[in-house]
Amino acid sequence: MDGPIGVTNEGARVRHGVRNGAHRGPTAGLAPGFVQGNLAVLPAAEAGDFLRFCHANPKPCPLLAVGEPGNPMLRALGDVDIRTDLPRYRIWRDGEVAEEVDDLRAVWRDDLVAFVLGCSFSFEEALIEAGLDLRHISCFGPGANVPMFRTSIACTPAGRFAGPMVVSMRPFRAADAIRAIQITTRFPGVHGAPVHLGDPSLIGIADVLRPDYGVPVPVERDELPVFWACGVTPQAVAAAAKVPFMITHVPSHMLVTDLRNASLAVL
Amino acid sequence: MDGPIGVTNEGARVRHGVRNGAHRGPTAGLAPGFVQGNLAVLPAAEAGDFLRFCHANPKPCPLLAVGEPGNPMLRALGDVDIRTDLPRYRIWRDGEVAEEVDDLRAVWRDDLVAFVLGCSFSFEEALIEAGLDLRHISCFGPGANVPMFRTSIACTPAGRFAGPMVVSMRPFRAADAIRAIQITTRFPGVHGAPVHLGDPSLIGIADVLRPDYGVPVPVERDELPVFWACGVTPQAVAAAAKVPFMITHVPSHMLVTDLRNASLAVL
Repeated sequence: MDGPIGVTNEGARVRHGVRNGAHRGPTAGLAPGFVQGNLAVLPAAEAGDFLRFCHANPKPCPLLAVGEPGNPMLRALGDVDIRTDLPRYRIWRDGEVAEEVDDLRAVWRDDLVAFVLGCSFSFEEALIEAGLDLRHISCFGPGANVPMFRTSIACTPAGRFAGPMVVSMRPFRAADAIRAIQITTRFPGVHGAPVHLGDPSLIGIADVLRPDYGVPVPVERDELPVFWACGVTPQAVAAAAKVPFMITHVPSHMLVTDLRNASLAVL
Repeated sequence: MDGPIGVTNEGARVRHGVRNGAHRGPTAGLAPGFVQGNLAVLPAAEAGDFLRFCHANPKPCPLLAVGEPGNPMLRALGDVDIRTDLPRYRIWRDGEVAEEVDDLRAVWRDDLVAFVLGCSFSFEEALIEAGLDLRHISCFGPGANVPMFRTSIACTPAGRFAGPMVVSMRPFRAADAIRAIQITTRFPGVHGAPVHLGDPSLIGIADVLRPDYGVPVPVERDELPVFWACGVTPQAVAAAAKVPFMITHVPSHMLVTDLRNASLAVL
């Protein structure tokens, strides 16, 4: 399954490397400028409710593309075959990870629907270009996972899909926090503006130095923690819904698309 | 000095009422939807430096219009005669208020240059339309003066004009603070986005409940104080520069223009 001859965009090149088995690791920092996405695959019987859930919760679940039932191709994102184009997958059964696999050829079914959701890598690139410091990267390197927290903010439920919003946190001094709000407002397709800043306890976070996922990073005395809705939310909610069968990417092993981050800016 | 026959816009109607002596009070709440402005009048010998100061400090000093030396008309803002169209004026000599007058006909000189600077009334209207609560208004009524503070933020100096930025403060819960940042970002011509939010001590404010100007308002435990650059800055700086002769409006007795607030939105 080689990529087409003469592909010139770096998103496609990286994706074809994944497809060919040449890359099996995390995708952070690969194909700079190109949109990466979170994957959720659900049986058609659950897909309607999940789609309604995404629509009702666009900040944690910004839907970039949804496939036809049974069709693993997502042309809106490039020559994407969802069965082969991510470095590593999780197969969930009854809300628990049953196994991790390198491709979905053996498990694909004609009732499966693929969802690709926006990822904060896109807006982080814009923040970095604006000269802002991303603490998790400056502390732990370009492949670091941002600190993430389950909150007391309830998502709007849809069918069996319900649960708390997960947020990512990046600390900034006030002037940079204001700039970060302005920049991420331009990117509603990849979580958009923050959902909170300042006192973490107001959204149910007991200790901002102890994230539920990702690395812990310091928040200095002259900084505000700034919280964005996070793409882990739909996965956590879908798992909590205990659907009999679901597929996701392994965290930080994302789908690299042909879309450019800059094309997601609404202004 | 009647206004032209058949004037239909409310900004002009209010301004003509001021011109005719029918209105001598504060202008807050008058001519909703129309831009109001701060006035500074300086001799041509000081005007160049003051103009450079405004250019270097666009957040506290957003310049809406500047007149030709000796010409009191500012056509860019309507049929504005700066000598008669504000309800009340202050004459400053050597950095101190020497007197207050109802019009400038007796003191106008052929070397004077009029500056009109944007005012937060314009963006406050947009905040109110978005359903946000402005504490100084909800506590003290529509004519209340927002709390204002001298800060440790230094303006960029130009010639003799130098000094600290003055800010206005409005408390909001985080989600409303984020919305307020988005809304005011659209209005760079009337102070634009905030310059700070959160810990007041980081910008040299010892007690956020004790403003240097305006009314004190409470900041609740679940709120952040949000600070915008304030139109009092240029007046305070010009006074500190001890120019021999200067004219300003009396606080809250603004110039009402023909411009619409909505026309100042950059997007």
